[in-house]
Amino acid sequence: MNEVLLREQIKTFLNEDLGTGDLSAELVFDKDTVGKGSFKAKTDGVFCGGVLIETVYSVFGDNDVKVKLNFKEGDRVKAGDILAHVEGRVRTLLSCERIILNLMQRMSGIATITRKLTDRLDDPTIKLVDTRKTLPGLRMLDKYAVKCGGGFNHRMGLYDGVMLKDNHIAFAGGIEKAVKAVRDQLGHTVKIEVETETAEQVKQAVKAGADIIMFDNRTPEEIKELVKLVPKGIITEASGGITPDSISGFKGCGVDVISTGYMTHTVTPMDISFNTDCGVKG
Amino acid sequence: MNEVLLREQIKTFLNEDLGTGDLSAELVFDKDTVGKGSFKAKTDGVFCGGVLIETVYSVFGDNDVKVKLNFKEGDRVKAGDILAHVEGRVRTLLSCERIILNLMQRMSGIATITRKLTDRLDDPTIKLVDTRKTLPGLRMLDKYAVKCGGGFNHRMGLYDGVMLKDNHIAFAGGIEKAVKAVRDQLGHTVKIEVETETAEQVKQAVKAGADIIMFDNRTPEEIKELVKLVPKGIITEASGGITPDSISGFKGCGVDVISTGYMTHTVTPMDISFNTDCGVKG
Amino acid sequence: MNEVLLREQIKTFLNEDLGTGDLSAELVFDKDTVGKGSFKAKTDGVFCGGVLIETVYSVFGDNDVKVKLNFKEGDRVKAGDILAHVEGRVRTLLSCERIILNLMQRMSGIATITRKLTDRLDDPTIKLVDTRKTLPGLRMLDKYAVKCGGGFNHRMGLYDGVMLKDNHIAFAGGIEKAVKAVRDQLGHTVKIEVETETAEQVKQAVKAGADIIMFDNRTPEEIKELVKLVPKGIITEASGGITPDSISGFKGCGVDVISTGYMTHTVTPMDISFNTDCGVKG
Amino acid sequence: MNEVLLREQIKTFLNEDLGTGDLSAELVFDKDTVGKGSFKAKTDGVFCGGVLIETVYSVFGDNDVKVKLNFKEGDRVKAGDILAHVEGRVRTLLSCERIILNLMQRMSGIATITRKLTDRLDDPTIKLVDTRKTLPGLRMLDKYAVKCGGGFNHRMGLYDGVMLKDNHIAFAGGIEKAVKAVRDQLGHTVKIEVETETAEQVKQAVKAGADIIMFDNRTPEEIKELVKLVPKGIITEASGGITPDSISGFKGCGVDVISTGYMTHTVTPMDISFNTDCGVKG
Amino acid sequence: MNEVLLREQIKTFLNEDLGTGDLSAELVFDKDTVGKGSFKAKTDGVFCGGVLIETVYSVFGDNDVKVKLNFKEGDRVKAGDILAHVEGRVRTLLSCERIILNLMQRMSGIATITRKLTDRLDDPTIKLVDTRKTLPGLRMLDKYAVKCGGGFNHRMGLYDGVMLKDNHIAFAGGIEKAVKAVRDQLGHTVKIEVETETAEQVKQAVKAGADIIMFDNRTPEEIKELVKLVPKGIITEASGGITPDSISGFKGCGVDVISTGYMTHTVTPMDISFNTDCGVKG
Amino acid sequence: MNEVLLREQIKTFLNEDLGTGDLSAELVFDKDTVGKGSFKAKTDGVFCGGVLIETVYSVFGDNDVKVKLNFKEGDRVKAGDILAHVEGRVRTLLSCERIILNLMQRMSGIATITRKLTDRLDDPTIKLVDTRKTLPGLRMLDKYAVKCGGGFNHRMGLYDGVMLKDNHIAFAGGIEKAVKAVRDQLGHTVKIEVETETAEQVKQAVKAGADIIMFDNRTPEEIKELVKLVPKGIITEASGGITPDSISGFKGCGVDVISTGYMTHTVTPMDISFNTDCGVKG
Repeated sequence: MNEVLLREQIKTFLNEDLGTGDLSAELVFDKDTVGKGSFKAKTDGVFCGGVLIETVYSVFGDNDVKVKLNFKEGDRVKAGDILAHVEGRVRTLLSCERIILNLMQRMSGIATITRKLTDRLDDPTIKLVDTRKTLPGLRMLDKYAVKCGGGFNHRMGLYDGVMLKDNHIAFAGGIEKAVKAVRDQLGHTVKIEVETETAEQVKQAVKAGADIIMFDNRTPEEIKELVKLVPKGIITEASGGITPDSISGFKGCGVDVISTGYMTHTVTPMDISFNTDCGVKG
Repeated sequence: MNEVLLREQIKTFLNEDLGTGDLSAELVFDKDTVGKGSFKAKTDGVFCGGVLIETVYSVFGDNDVKVKLNFKEGDRVKAGDILAHVEGRVRTLLSCERIILNLMQRMSGIATITRKLTDRLDDPTIKLVDTRKTLPGLRMLDKYAVKCGGGFNHRMGLYDGVMLKDNHIAFAGGIEKAVKAVRDQLGHTVKIEVETETAEQVKQAVKAGADIIMFDNRTPEEIKELVKLVPKGIITEASGGITPDSISGFKGCGVDVISTGYMTHTVTPMDISFNTDCGVKG
Repeated sequence: MNEVLLREQIKTFLNEDLGTGDLSAELVFDKDTVGKGSFKAKTDGVFCGGVLIETVYSVFGDNDVKVKLNFKEGDRVKAGDILAHVEGRVRTLLSCERIILNLMQRMSGIATITRKLTDRLDDPTIKLVDTRKTLPGLRMLDKYAVKCGGGFNHRMGLYDGVMLKDNHIAFAGGIEKAVKAVRDQLGHTVKIEVETETAEQVKQAVKAGADIIMFDNRTPEEIKELVKLVPKGIITEASGGITPDSISGFKGCGVDVISTGYMTHTVTPMDISFNTDCGVKG
Repeated sequence: MNEVLLREQIKTFLNEDLGTGDLSAELVFDKDTVGKGSFKAKTDGVFCGGVLIETVYSVFGDNDVKVKLNFKEGDRVKAGDILAHVEGRVRTLLSCERIILNLMQRMSGIATITRKLTDRLDDPTIKLVDTRKTLPGLRMLDKYAVKCGGGFNHRMGLYDGVMLKDNHIAFAGGIEKAVKAVRDQLGHTVKIEVETETAEQVKQAVKAGADIIMFDNRTPEEIKELVKLVPKGIITEASGGITPDSISGFKGCGVDVISTGYMTHTVTPMDISFNTDCGVKG
Repeated sequence: MNEVLLREQIKTFLNEDLGTGDLSAELVFDKDTVGKGSFKAKTDGVFCGGVLIETVYSVFGDNDVKVKLNFKEGDRVKAGDILAHVEGRVRTLLSCERIILNLMQRMSGIATITRKLTDRLDDPTIKLVDTRKTLPGLRMLDKYAVKCGGGFNHRMGLYDGVMLKDNHIAFAGGIEKAVKAVRDQLGHTVKIEVETETAEQVKQAVKAGADIIMFDNRTPEEIKELVKLVPKGIITEASGGITPDSISGFKGCGVDVISTGYMTHTVTPMDISFNTDCGVKG
Repeated sequence: MNEVLLREQIKTFLNEDLGTGDLSAELVFDKDTVGKGSFKAKTDGVFCGGVLIETVYSVFGDNDVKVKLNFKEGDRVKAGDILAHVEGRVRTLLSCERIILNLMQRMSGIATITRKLTDRLDDPTIKLVDTRKTLPGLRMLDKYAVKCGGGFNHRMGLYDGVMLKDNHIAFAGGIEKAVKAVRDQLGHTVKIEVETETAEQVKQAVKAGADIIMFDNRTPEEIKELVKLVPKGIITEASGGITPDSISGFKGCGVDVISTGYMTHTVTPMDISFNTDCGVKG
C-alpha cells in the first residue's frame, strides 16, 4: 500500500464529511477534552482496516490519539470482540468516527467475503483473485482487503497488465495477430492475458504465446477439459459467475486462478460500532 | 449535483484505473478507429447514473462520443433493456467502460433498493432518507442515487446539520443544556436533531426546542406512542434497523421521516453489461 | 472550522507568496538563526485569527515555533496591546509574517465590525448573521470571524440552505408553487427561505410553509407590520441596507434575524504590526 | 494574468460556494431553461473583472453562455450603467452569480480606489504601486485590478524582488553588508530594495548599490530632502500612510514611486447588481 | 499514455513557467493578434513529442491553434527539417514555446539515443528496455520516448513488477526463500525478477521459479555462459554499464532483454528551434 | 527554495514511483525492520541535493530516519566519498532510494557542470547564469543546483522578468517602441532585457532605456566591441553557444553576465550509489 497516496485519499474523505466543520462536536466539546472509545464487532468476520485508524486521526491533524489494536489485519473476529481501543481528544474521535467506520466496515466486509470464498473453494492449488470491479476511488483499499481475506490481486488497472477480449481480438484479426501486435510493443515485464470461451480459442491462445488464458463463463466440467489443452508455464484462469454458492464446484477443476468481482462488488459491510466515553465537563 | 466537483472526482477515478495508460486498447486500436456500444440491463431495477456517461468521456478528453440515453434517471428498467447507445472512438469506449459500469451499477443498485424500500413502506406521509453511511469519496453520487430512487437526503455531512447523540448530551449535562449550548452559537438556517430512546428523553428534546427528534432503534409500536409526545412543527424521525424486511411495519407509525443507512451501505449493484462493436480494421 | 481544509488553504496562500522562495530571508539569515517577535494591535478592536498563527508556521514546515497568545478569539483589544509573542527560526517568522498579518487583520476587522454592529443594534432577541458576500476562497475564515465578533452564520453556500428569490418564484409560478416544488424534493434537514417585499408575499410565504421569511429592503416600520403576519415557528429575517449607521433603527423591530453582507464585504482590516528581534549573527 | 492558474482559482471558488450542489436552482429550474441577465453598476467607479464572467461560466462547465461586455477593463462607469449582458442556461446564471459579483465588486472597488488615488496624486512622474497586502488567494486578481485602475505592481511575492528591512540589515551588520550579502548570491534580474528612515541610511543604501531606496513613513517635506541624496539610476519609493486624504501632499515630492497597501487592503467593493429574466416555464 | 494525467502534468509545467503571467507577451501583443510559427530540427535525430504540441496549447486554454505535423512520432529527421507548423494567437505561441521545446527536445533526445543504441546493438532477438532512472515527474513521457525510439519499457514503477536485489535476498535468507515469500503473496499477473551476479545465483533463481533473471554487470562473455543455465520460459536480462560504446559487444550474447538507464539518464536533447512570424500591428 | 512547494513536488514524485505500493519491499521486509545505508559518490564532482534526503523520507511519512550528511551543498567530492549515512526503516530506505538518487544525481550533475564552467571561465567579474531551459516540473531544483555550483539564476519564469526578442520588437515597431510599451505598464521592480545582435540594435536598446542588454550569439571579439556602446548602469549579457569548450574564450570580454542553458539542458548526472545493510531477520 502506498501510504502517501493513502493519506491523500483520506484527506479527500475527511473533507467530504467535514465540509466547513463538524457543527455538533465543535459546538459542544471543548477543544482539549479527552475521552476513550472502542470499536466493537457486532457480527463474526475477518477484520481489516485497523491500520487506517491511526492514519485517519493523523490526517485529521491530531497525532496524539493512542490506538491499541487487539487484532491483526486478516484475523477472524467474533461478534462482541473489541477490535481496538482509542484514547484522545473527543472532537477528533467523533469527527473521524464515521470515516473510519465506513472504511473499516467495507474492508472487513470484503475480507470476510474473500475468506468465505476461499474456505468454500477449499483448494490450495487455486488462487482466488479480484477484478477491476472495485468502487471508484477505493481500488487500493478494496484490493488490500482482498489480500487480508486470503485472496490475491489481479491487475491493479489498465496499466499493469494486458487483457485481450473479443473486441481486441476481432479488431486485430484473431487471437494470434492480437497477441503478436501487443507483444511487439510490450516490455518483458507485463503479461498478456487472453479471454477464451471455446477449445479452439484456447488452442489459438496457446499457440499465440499468451501468458495467461482465461476461461470465461465456463462450467467446472468444461474447464477440466480446457486446461488439458494448456501446456505448463501458461497460467489458467476461470472467471465469470463465481459466487459463494457456486465456488465449491470449482474445487479440483485444475485452473491456477479463479477471478471474481464478487468480493468487491457485492459487499455486505461488517457491522462495527464505535462507543465512546467522552469525558465529563469539569 | 455540483458538476465541477463531479468532474474532479471522475478525473481521480480515471487516473486510478488508467495509471500510465491503457495497455490493451492503446496497443491494439488505432487512435481514430470508431465503433458503437450499448449498455444493457441484465436485471430489473431502477436506472441511475446515465447522466455520467457523457461526463466520463468528456473528462477522459473526448468530446466527440455520441450518447443516446433510452431512459431517464429513476426510470424502472427491465432485464434486457438497452439503457444507452454510444458511438465514438473505440479507445475511449473501452478505456472508460469500467468506470462507467462501476459507477452506474452502484448508483442503479442504490436507486433500486431505495425504490424497493419506499414501495414496501407504502406510506406517502413518511419520507425515506439516507445517512452518512456512504462510501468515502462517493457521497454526492450515493445521495444523488437515493433521490433518483424516490428517497430523500439527510444532512450531507457534519457541516450542514447538528445531530446530538448520547455523547454530546452527556458531556453537555443533559438534552436541554446541549441544545441550548448549540443554539446559542448556531445560525438560524441549521436544524438541531436530537437522538432519543425513551419517552423522558423525547419530552426533554421537545422542551429544549429540538427541530428534529429521532427515535433510535424503536419499534413501530413504541414510535406510535412517542410521536404523541411531539407537538406539530417538530419533525420526527425513526432510525435503526430498517431493512426491506422490517420497513413495512413502519407504515402508519406517524413519523415524518425514516432514516436508514441500508440504501447506501449494503448495495447490490444492478447488473449492467457493455457490449461493443469495435469497428473492423481497414 | 475544518482544520484539514484550513491547512490546504494556508498551503495555497503560502505558495502564492513564496513562489520559488523568499529571496530576502533566505539570502540573509542562516537556516537555524532564531529570534523573537510580537504581534501588536495598533487600533482598538476585536481580536480574531490568533489560532492561525501556529497553523501557518506548521504548514510552512516548521513545528518548532513557540506561540504565546495573550488574547482569546473574540476578545476586545486596545491599540498597543501585544496580541501574541512568537519565538523560533527567523526565516520562518519573516517568511510567514505577511500571510499571518493579511489573514489576522482581515479576520479581526470582520470581528470588530460585527461587534460594532451588534453593539449598536443592542437587541439580544435579534441574531445578526452574515451572507455569501464573502471573498472567494476565504468564506470559512470570514464566517468564522463573524462568529468571533458575536454574529452568527447564515447558510455557508448554495448547498446547505434554500433561498427562493423573485426569479425562482416567477419561474415556478408563485411562492406557493415554488416552495412546494422544492419541499417535494428536499430532505427534512434543510430549511427553505423565501424573499419577500410585500405583505401579500409574506402571507403567501406563510401559507406555503416557508421555514424562514426574509423581508428584503424593508424599513424597521414596515418590518414591524410584516412580522405580525408571521406565526410563531417561522423565522423572520430582515435584510438589505444594514450598516453601522442604520442598524440601531432595527432595535425592537421584531425579527429573529438581521442579515447583512456588510461585515465581510466592506472590511476595514484591524491594523496589526509584527515586530521582530531577529537575533544577532554569531 | 496566467489563465491556467485563474481557472484553477475559479474552480476552488465555485466548489466553495456550490459544495454538493445548488439546492435552489437545481430544484426549481429545468436543466435547459434559458434566460437573460445583466450586471448593473449601482455606484460610479472604474470597472474591472468583466473578463472573468465568461471564464466563470466556462469553469462551471457551461460554454454556451453569450456574454456581451459594454465596457472595457478600467473604463469609468456611472451608477445605472449596464456593464454586461448575459444569455444562457438559467441554472448557470444563478449558480455563478455570487462568485462573479463577489470578484467583480472587489476588483472594481480596487480599480476605483486606485484611480481615485492617482487622480488625487495628479503627478505623472510618480508611479503608484501596490504591496503584498492583498487577500490570501487573490493576489493575482487584486494586482490585476490595480493595473486596471491605472496603478502599477510592486513585487508579486517574496520570490521576485528583494526587500531589506531593519531586521535583515541589523542581522547582516548594516546596510552595506546586507546588500553585499544578497548581491553576492543574487542573479542580475532581481532588484534589491532597501527600506530607510534617515538621511544616513539613505546615504548608506546609495553607497551599497541598492537598486531601489524606499523612504518609510516620511513626510513629503522629508522626502524632498532625501531624494537629493540619491543619484539618478537608483529608483526612489515613498511608502507608509498613503491614503486618499494624504496622497495629494506627495505631488511633486520627487520620488519615482509611491507604494501603498491601501488599494487592496481597505477595499470598498463597487456595488454591482445582477438582474435576471429567468424564462417562463412552458 | 494516459492523457488525463498528461494534461495534469502539462498544467503543472505551464504554471511553473507562467507564474502570475507572461509579462513580455501580455504587455506587447494584443490578445487576438495571430501569427505563424514553425519548429525546426537543428540536428539529425529521431523525432518525438509532436503529439504534445496541440495538448499544450489546449491546456493553456487556447483550442484554436492549428497544428500541422510533418513527421510522425519516431520518424528520423535531419537538421533543417521543419517538424511542425503552427498558426494561432501569438500570445499562445510565445507563452507555450518554452514548455513545448523543453519537452520535445528531451523526448526527441531520448528517442534518438534509443535508436542509436538499438542500431548499434543490431540484434533483433534482444529487446532494449529502460529503467526507473527517469526524471521525477517525467516518467510517463520519458518511457513513451523510449518506445518511440524503438526501445521497450521495463516496469513503470515499484508497483507493477517485483525486483529482488541483494538486500531483499539477504534479508529473506536466500533467493529461494525470497522468491517464495513474494510468490506466496503476489497475484498471478506480476512477474518476479531476480538480480544475479554468479552462476550459483542464477541456478538458485532458476530453481526458485523466477520469471526474469537479470545478470548484473556481467560481460558479454560471462553472459553467454550464464544464459546456458536458464531454461526456456524464463526471461534473461543483461544490465549494467550499457552505453553506446559498449552495446555492440552484447550482440548475440543470448539474452532476451538488455536494460539500461542510459537512455533517460544521460540525455542530450535534440536541438530544436521555434521561429515565429508574429503578425504585424495595425 | 520554497519548502512547501518542494514537499508537494516530492509527493508527486513519490506517487509516480510508488503507484499502489512497493511490491518488492512490502512483500519481503517487515514493517519495522531497520537498517543502515550510505550514499557514495562514484565520480568526482560537486555535491548537491543532500538537503532533500530527509525531506523525501518525511514526505514518504517516516520522520524517524536519521540522516548524517558528510558534505555541504556545493562541496567538491571525490569518487569514493561517502556523501551521507542514513539509518531507519528498511522499507523507507528502499522505497525512497530511487527518487533520492534520481534527484541528487541530476542536481549534483548540474552543480558539477556549473562549477566546471565557472572554473574554465575564470573571470570573477562575470556572473554565469542559467536560463529557462530546465526540465518541466524541476525548475526550482534545477536552478537551486546552479547556485550550489557557483552560478546564478536568470529569471525564474515568464513572470519575473521581461525579455524582448525579435518577435516582440518587430510587432511593437522597433526596440524603442517595444521598451516604452512595456515600461509604461510595468512596475518598478521588474527589469527589461532586450536581445540584440548588431551594434545598431545595442545603441537602440541603450537609448530605449533597457535594463539589461543581451548580445545573442556573438563571439568574444564582437562582444568586446559591443560592450563599449553600453553605458555603466546597464547590465550586459552574453548568450548563445556557451559550452565547456567555448567558455574560456569569453574571459575578459567585458560583459557582466554570461547566460547558458547548457547547465540544466545537457546534464550528465553524477554517479551516486546507495548501499544498504538491511538488517537480518530475527
